[in-house]
Amino acid sequence: MPALARYFPILEWGRSYNRSVLTNDLMAAVIVTIMLIPQSLAYALLAGLPPVVGLYASIMPLVLYAIFGTSRTLAVGPVAVVSLMTASAAGAIAAQGTAEYLEAAITLAMLSGVMLAALGLLRAGFLANLLSHPVISGFITASGILIATSQLKHILGVKAGGDNWPDMLGSLAQTIGDTNPWTLAIGIPATLFLFWVRKGAKRALQLAGMPPRAADMAAKAGPVAAVALTIVAVLAFDLAAKGVNLVGAIPQGLPPFALPSTDIALIQQLWVPALLISIIGFVESVSVAQTLAAKRRQRIAPNQELIGLGAANVASAFSGGYPVTGGFARSVVNFDAGAETPAAGAFTAVGIALASLFLTPLLFNLPIATLAATIIVAVLSLVDLKTPGQLWRYSKADFAAHVATIGITLLAGVELGVIAGVAVGLLLYLWRASRPHAAVVGRVPETEHFRNVERHKVITVPHVLSIRIDESLTYLNARWLEEYVLERVAERPELRHVILMCSAVNEIDASGLESLEAINHRLGDGGIGMHLSEVKGPVMDRLHRTHFIEELNGKVFLSQDRAFSELARDDGAPPPPVDHYLARGMI
Amino acid sequence: MPALARYFPILEWGRSYNRSVLTNDLMAAVIVTIMLIPQSLAYALLAGLPPVVGLYASIMPLVLYAIFGTSRTLAVGPVAVVSLMTASAAGAIAAQGTAEYLEAAITLAMLSGVMLAALGLLRAGFLANLLSHPVISGFITASGILIATSQLKHILGVKAGGDNWPDMLGSLAQTIGDTNPWTLAIGIPATLFLFWVRKGAKRALQLAGMPPRAADMAAKAGPVAAVALTIVAVLAFDLAAKGVNLVGAIPQGLPPFALPSTDIALIQQLWVPALLISIIGFVESVSVAQTLAAKRRQRIAPNQELIGLGAANVASAFSGGYPVTGGFARSVVNFDAGAETPAAGAFTAVGIALASLFLTPLLFNLPIATLAATIIVAVLSLVDLKTPGQLWRYSKADFAAHVATIGITLLAGVELGVIAGVAVGLLLYLWRASRPHAAVVGRVPETEHFRNVERHKVITVPHVLSIRIDESLTYLNARWLEEYVLERVAERPELRHVILMCSAVNEIDASGLESLEAINHRLGDGGIGMHLSEVKGPVMDRLHRTHFIEELNGKVFLSQDRAFSELARDDGAPPPPVDHYLARGMI
Repeated sequence: MPALARYFPILEWGRSYNRSVLTNDLMAAVIVTIMLIPQSLAYALLAGLPPVVGLYASIMPLVLYAIFGTSRTLAVGPVAVVSLMTASAAGAIAAQGTAEYLEAAITLAMLSGVMLAALGLLRAGFLANLLSHPVISGFITASGILIATSQLKHILGVKAGGDNWPDMLGSLAQTIGDTNPWTLAIGIPATLFLFWVRKGAKRALQLAGMPPRAADMAAKAGPVAAVALTIVAVLAFDLAAKGVNLVGAIPQGLPPFALPSTDIALIQQLWVPALLISIIGFVESVSVAQTLAAKRRQRIAPNQELIGLGAANVASAFSGGYPVTGGFARSVVNFDAGAETPAAGAFTAVGIALASLFLTPLLFNLPIATLAATIIVAVLSLVDLKTPGQLWRYSKADFAAHVATIGITLLAGVELGVIAGVAVGLLLYLWRASRPHAAVVGRVPETEHFRNVERHKVITVPHVLSIRIDESLTYLNARWLEEYVLERVAERPELRHVILMCSAVNEIDASGLESLEAINHRLGDGGIGMHLSEVKGPVMDRLHRTHFIEELNGKVFLSQDRAFSELARDDGAPPPPVDHYLARGMI
Repeated sequence: MPALARYFPILEWGRSYNRSVLTNDLMAAVIVTIMLIPQSLAYALLAGLPPVVGLYASIMPLVLYAIFGTSRTLAVGPVAVVSLMTASAAGAIAAQGTAEYLEAAITLAMLSGVMLAALGLLRAGFLANLLSHPVISGFITASGILIATSQLKHILGVKAGGDNWPDMLGSLAQTIGDTNPWTLAIGIPATLFLFWVRKGAKRALQLAGMPPRAADMAAKAGPVAAVALTIVAVLAFDLAAKGVNLVGAIPQGLPPFALPSTDIALIQQLWVPALLISIIGFVESVSVAQTLAAKRRQRIAPNQELIGLGAANVASAFSGGYPVTGGFARSVVNFDAGAETPAAGAFTAVGIALASLFLTPLLFNLPIATLAATIIVAVLSLVDLKTPGQLWRYSKADFAAHVATIGITLLAGVELGVIAGVAVGLLLYLWRASRPHAAVVGRVPETEHFRNVERHKVITVPHVLSIRIDESLTYLNARWLEEYVLERVAERPELRHVILMCSAVNEIDASGLESLEAINHRLGDGGIGMHLSEVKGPVMDRLHRTHFIEELNGKVFLSQDRAFSELARDDGAPPPPVDHYLARGMI
């Protein structure tokens, strides 16, 4: 691929753009726009920001992603988990509703954008690997619970706070007496209606005789119906006068030009949350993008995705938005609606821009409780109660990482939750990596195969010890190798030869080499020969660049069979006189 | 081993203690005591502490290590690198010479002791693996340079400071005008003399007719000679009046009972340096202990070593000392002098205690420059100029970790140096772990062996793709696996079967499993069968605890040969009509 097209995927798909693709993209854009308007407002609310910020975050980022992104169908914008993380990070800087809070959110988008783009240019997408599946799913489950809990106050119409679960619940318990019955009368039916829309509406409409495709579309429009119905209810019963919180005046117009803060003190406070937002956003986005790409046998380029998401976030910052990423639900809708290229995203941006120019006055009387109901229903599908049991059965270590992530996220908030998840995963990995697999092997009778002496009936001789190493030798297990070999040797006083069978060793790093040297030296001190067998070509090439092979107190054999045959024979002869050892410096 | 003896190794070796062992231990203790007196004073100086603190750190810690340690010959006490780290950490709290500085040093010993013991009880010695050989050797080289540079001020008799190289050199450049010629007249000859003692004295004495063993002992007593000669010079020329800095009055008596600080704010500032001191001290100590143990075919228990060093540091804190660990030079002397059990360490403690009771007045006139010369000569042997070249030839990644550690330690000090070394090592490891080895394989003609198609002439068929995975599938490489397999598949439109050959897969964690499920699902969407071959027993047992095998879009074969033979035969049928593909959603 030419370098320019690599960094500007638009040059690739743009060349074959035609009228039929245009029609499909436009169609998808209309559907996604309708879905995105209430979602953008709701997620801005979750992030503790004015609703209009959600609209701003759904315009320029989509255009930039269309230029730089590699997924054909990913729909970028505000998402639930990143909104929660934004609320947590900005809330540590200033109170919600202040100019400082908004500035912190914009600066987070800027920092996150710069970090994502830098990671992409450095081709450091592999860092996302640090988040294992159990950690991600634990984090998403806990976030879903936190987000749903955080929205209960809007359903009740009370003023509660907290950014971890105990604080949230405590705060709700204190304020529940102030519950506004009218708000509740909007919130609970809206929540139940949206649940029904999600779970049963499509089937019910089909049973009522609607054709499947129309039923599907009608069910997708459910949130818009909830918005319309509750606005009508507010007007009909004059709920504004009865203390029901409304969205109120949303400034009309296109996104403003905004400047993120360049205050070093603020950046120092925000860079860690920005990094976490970047990584979580990237992982979520890439998972969605890969799933959708595979369905059409397309590929995405993870490092270029980092650049695309980085550009989207920088654009969000400069147009008064907050951190964005690729969202699961809306991308699936975009895909299902037939989007073929990222141009669909750009058309969606136009749709949202038109909405912010002309539609916002219609939303004046929208109850906040309706938006909260939208969020609650959306995030409860993130809570996954099956995974813990599956992990427990499959792998206790993965279960531990999963549960630790859920527990710490709920108790200490999203930032510590992610960090703890990564740390626990890494510690467990390092612990396992420090105790790799190896086995004492013997020859399977009448073959040239060598198998674990503990599992198979195999031939061994007391003066030769064959050890098969089942991993690459790296600094994480170098010390283990020394201990493993020397312990096996200490058990066998009659030993004269050790063969390390290296068929599974793909790499020996400098620490591994040093351990091999130490083992060679110590075996030599004890008058024991150290031999290698089945060393892979590239590993051998590298060993030849050192003095290790020259100093080896034994031989390198091409096959384990040849090594064992030759050294086992070294048994028949009477033991050489002491002079023999003296001459070799062995005693 | 009984549980009690595991935690109290003294119960093991104490039972067979007899008069002959006692004689050997006493002999070694006398020699180590003579060596340790000037060293303790010098390292306390390096740590920015009063000389007597070095003596205190060489008494109780030795007794506690004798009870809890597993090495028979390790000699514990103040060492150069840990002294430098102490100076750096305590210097961030208070100015040298203040009570707060001393309190910080004592608290560091306490924290470090508690951390070491806790890691030992948690059996977390594997964490020391995070320090690879290239990182450790880079850190030791840079520390040697920093330490030698820090002592130049004492040779010149000026007041300079700094805890990184540029600051130290800058400070020396500013103050070099104040050089005291008399101090220089002591410092330079003392340095040269000690260099000669280390490098050429033994040979010279032998050439002069001394028997080898006596020459060796005489050379080892060189530092004591330097101490005696410079004291005589101070008295003869009344150098005190000429501005030569002297050790001065050292309080006579046994170590006091000291209390480490329990101030939370201080502990918050010190816990990171204390952790780094613990890990560096542990790694240095274990390397020495293992090397010596192997020479006598003994073993050490790394987790119990943590407990032994932890107890030594707690003892150091409560007796007014600072962080200690096992030192290389003195342990070798202890070993060579014939020490057989840790009792030699306890006897050394008695020796140092006697010295602090009776000998300290003799050291009143000892020039600081002599101690500085002792340090400079000792640490320059730590500077290793060969390793960078060897690493460059052997492994660019290890070279990068080594050089980064040296550079950051010199430029930003010891703490950031260790942290950066660990981080660089881990990043490079994760980067490699995220791109593990795998190969497309084919059958070697007329055998049952399968080898890499790029290196060997092997048999393949266009509709079967065999991929050998050469690593365990973990979360670090799970994403890579998906990409690798799906890219290979995207290249071959005629493909009908993929076989994953799992002979080298020792483990599949939950993320690896999820990736296999994703691959299975996507291959299934494309009408391609996914098969496994040569899955190890324990891996298969675990897969059976999930639905993966049931949902597998293909079969599990015991051998790769059987898989290839059966699936290659699936070729004979005429190509299915287009409808066949259409029905499977492939076109």
